[in-house]
Amino acid sequence: MLAFPFLLYRMRAVDLIRKKRDSGEHSREEIDFLISGYTRGEIPDYQMAAWLMAAWIRGLNRSELAALTESMLYSGEVVNLSDLPGKKVDKHSTGGVGDKTSLILAPIVAAGGLTVPMISGRGLGHTGGTLDKLESIPGFNTALTLEEFRRVLKECGMALIGQTAEIAPADKKIYALRDATSTVENIGLICASIMSKKLAEGIDALVLDVKTGSGAFMQKEADAVLLAEVMVDTAKRMGKKAVALITDMDQPLGRLAGHSHEVIESIEVLKNRGPKDLRDLSIELSAWMFFLGERTKNLDEGRRLAEMMVSTGQALEKFREGIRLQGGDERVVEDYERLPQARLRAEVLSESQGYVAATNCMEFGIALAMLGGGREKKEDKIDHGVALEFHKRIGDRVEKNEPLVSIFYNSDARLSEARALIANAFSISEKSPAKPSTLVRSVLGA
Amino acid sequence: MLAFPFLLYRMRAVDLIRKKRDSGEHSREEIDFLISGYTRGEIPDYQMAAWLMAAWIRGLNRSELAALTESMLYSGEVVNLSDLPGKKVDKHSTGGVGDKTSLILAPIVAAGGLTVPMISGRGLGHTGGTLDKLESIPGFNTALTLEEFRRVLKECGMALIGQTAEIAPADKKIYALRDATSTVENIGLICASIMSKKLAEGIDALVLDVKTGSGAFMQKEADAVLLAEVMVDTAKRMGKKAVALITDMDQPLGRLAGHSHEVIESIEVLKNRGPKDLRDLSIELSAWMFFLGERTKNLDEGRRLAEMMVSTGQALEKFREGIRLQGGDERVVEDYERLPQARLRAEVLSESQGYVAATNCMEFGIALAMLGGGREKKEDKIDHGVALEFHKRIGDRVEKNEPLVSIFYNSDARLSEARALIANAFSISEKSPAKPSTLVRSVLGA
Repeated sequence: MLAFPFLLYRMRAVDLIRKKRDSGEHSREEIDFLISGYTRGEIPDYQMAAWLMAAWIRGLNRSELAALTESMLYSGEVVNLSDLPGKKVDKHSTGGVGDKTSLILAPIVAAGGLTVPMISGRGLGHTGGTLDKLESIPGFNTALTLEEFRRVLKECGMALIGQTAEIAPADKKIYALRDATSTVENIGLICASIMSKKLAEGIDALVLDVKTGSGAFMQKEADAVLLAEVMVDTAKRMGKKAVALITDMDQPLGRLAGHSHEVIESIEVLKNRGPKDLRDLSIELSAWMFFLGERTKNLDEGRRLAEMMVSTGQALEKFREGIRLQGGDERVVEDYERLPQARLRAEVLSESQGYVAATNCMEFGIALAMLGGGREKKEDKIDHGVALEFHKRIGDRVEKNEPLVSIFYNSDARLSEARALIANAFSISEKSPAKPSTLVRSVLGA
Repeated sequence: MLAFPFLLYRMRAVDLIRKKRDSGEHSREEIDFLISGYTRGEIPDYQMAAWLMAAWIRGLNRSELAALTESMLYSGEVVNLSDLPGKKVDKHSTGGVGDKTSLILAPIVAAGGLTVPMISGRGLGHTGGTLDKLESIPGFNTALTLEEFRRVLKECGMALIGQTAEIAPADKKIYALRDATSTVENIGLICASIMSKKLAEGIDALVLDVKTGSGAFMQKEADAVLLAEVMVDTAKRMGKKAVALITDMDQPLGRLAGHSHEVIESIEVLKNRGPKDLRDLSIELSAWMFFLGERTKNLDEGRRLAEMMVSTGQALEKFREGIRLQGGDERVVEDYERLPQARLRAEVLSESQGYVAATNCMEFGIALAMLGGGREKKEDKIDHGVALEFHKRIGDRVEKNEPLVSIFYNSDARLSEARALIANAFSISEKSPAKPSTLVRSVLGA
């Protein structure tokens, strides 16, 4: 080969872009060359953008995906929690409207004896984010350093923070680029983004809540199942226990969407009250965490342990402790008035009578964002007091002029738009619809 | 709609990227938004790179292509030659090894009474470029301003220059990005790049020489035909006469490849000598230019006029005049010693006897570049004296140790590599091959 230096192989981004463009399969080394080169700034944005589009369209197979996840994961620090006793488990949801289970299951599972090191995200578009919800609690600090994170975890078994600069910097940089180049909605890239962050938390096991339906990113159940499969597969290839629950997002989870109101509804569940759907899903996810974290021998025991943590008040106490350790005002647990509240209230009334046949759930999230309770752009500030309260679920009987949704708001600048979106999101039919889909549609990877 | 400003449509690059990613069809306005926004620097490289990859994979239809060509064309100045008498015609070749017809047909057609405003490119990879060949003539200036270009055209009817900053700046910027993002080899993007530059010359008609075979960019004839079709279609949609000849590039055109040597071979043809294949193709392309430029009533008359311009010496005189007007030493026409010559010579001998069955023509171009007679990277300097002389054509009988190719070179740093490439590029078979493909395989758009 030395006689032909012209032909000698030197890895170049432009050749890897061509390979993926032509539906080729990357080696682990090639993926690592791209991701580490991009993270270090040696590969420019425009080359990564071209590769991302090629990968979006041509796809990434399971082994490319595992390599991508691993490269992104090791682009930064991987938290080592091996000095903390017991198993570390986490849950990740793909997001939806009113999805507040993290606030409920973290204290349940921590109270039950496992460690929950949770790195969460912010809401964007029609979805809410765990960090934003927690920040409606006065003083609550989600921007802990990794050292503080470790200290809080050690003290109370749970900590909920945002992605730090040390965690998967490749993902942070790539995500911003995907957002600007329409390469977000791709199962492989979504999987690598989620898993690189989650596996950087130093966990032993992960429960995935993959939402499907009109309020989910994966509206079609087949897409949700595929995403669930690749995430579980990727986690297992990297030596982690994982399970994915495909759950319903054809309507909001619980009765409330909006930051401080979701905190209140979560506390209600921890007080052994709250809406059945939210409570059931929180118990189910907690049960899987107990089981994968080897705290219980089976899922049924996990369910019973979760129920017990709620009924005995231990989970509520754990939540109070967690709030305090992250600088928040723990008195919110007893005094909801300490949380931001919107000043004004308006009702969306039904224009006809019949049964709620379906909802376009994503529109609720968009209406909420429009009123200030979400972000249309990353830079937008959130009004934590704005909320929607849902009075009717799919299958419920509704009379003409009966309230469908209450709007809690501060500014009426876009109220009429939001009302119209919400009203149009309900399909009312004369006949009672077929039984609505079950909360947990399937379980993968168990 | 005014009640729903949230839903009001504002054009954004990210949405257009998504549209093409999802195989959508762009409107003329959308294409123009992308191209003009990118040229002005309002759309960043990374968004254009993502769009280019989506367009590369998903394709552009004929009306998108016409819109793209037009947007790129009007990103800069369009030369107005309407004050010059008669029709303005040009030829464009997609490039190959030894393809020097521009140097021959420009003087033939200008001598025959039409105006030939030719904006050419440089060689890259295995291909030679007209500008580089002309620059082997001492003093020849290809970097005329548009004003000088117009003056030379007015005086002698032909001028050969490079792309100026004023001509299709969008193409210049996009081409550099395509080169770095593996989005070059796409028929639609190639068509828009070529046609935006050619139509900016202010021509009435264009003859396209689309090469196919082992030394062409479009190695498969079907790809060459498709490119020819879209180029002719795009030219016609923009009100220009156009025809495309699909011509053979399974072996070099003429006997010589290398800059000063190609100038010599061109002058030989203008002196009514030179190799038959080169002479035939030059006459054929000139004939089409005369016909499309309405200088002759049909193609046969065009052929006769072209032959006459050569046999009477008028084309040679025109070439001499053109060289002089662009600052070159016109004495090269009589005295080839005034052109750069390599100092050393080596022979590649046949290792077996039989017949030349095929050549991997691209390898000749690569070997030439390796010896300094071409560019591997844009920044490389060219050694104008380096050349290859081909002694055998497909179908020729060859004896063992008979010379296949003579190499004219100055440095033996990579001579052995180049020799090996050249030797391996010949397939010698025992039996005489089927008749080699004809020079002009088909004509489209006539």
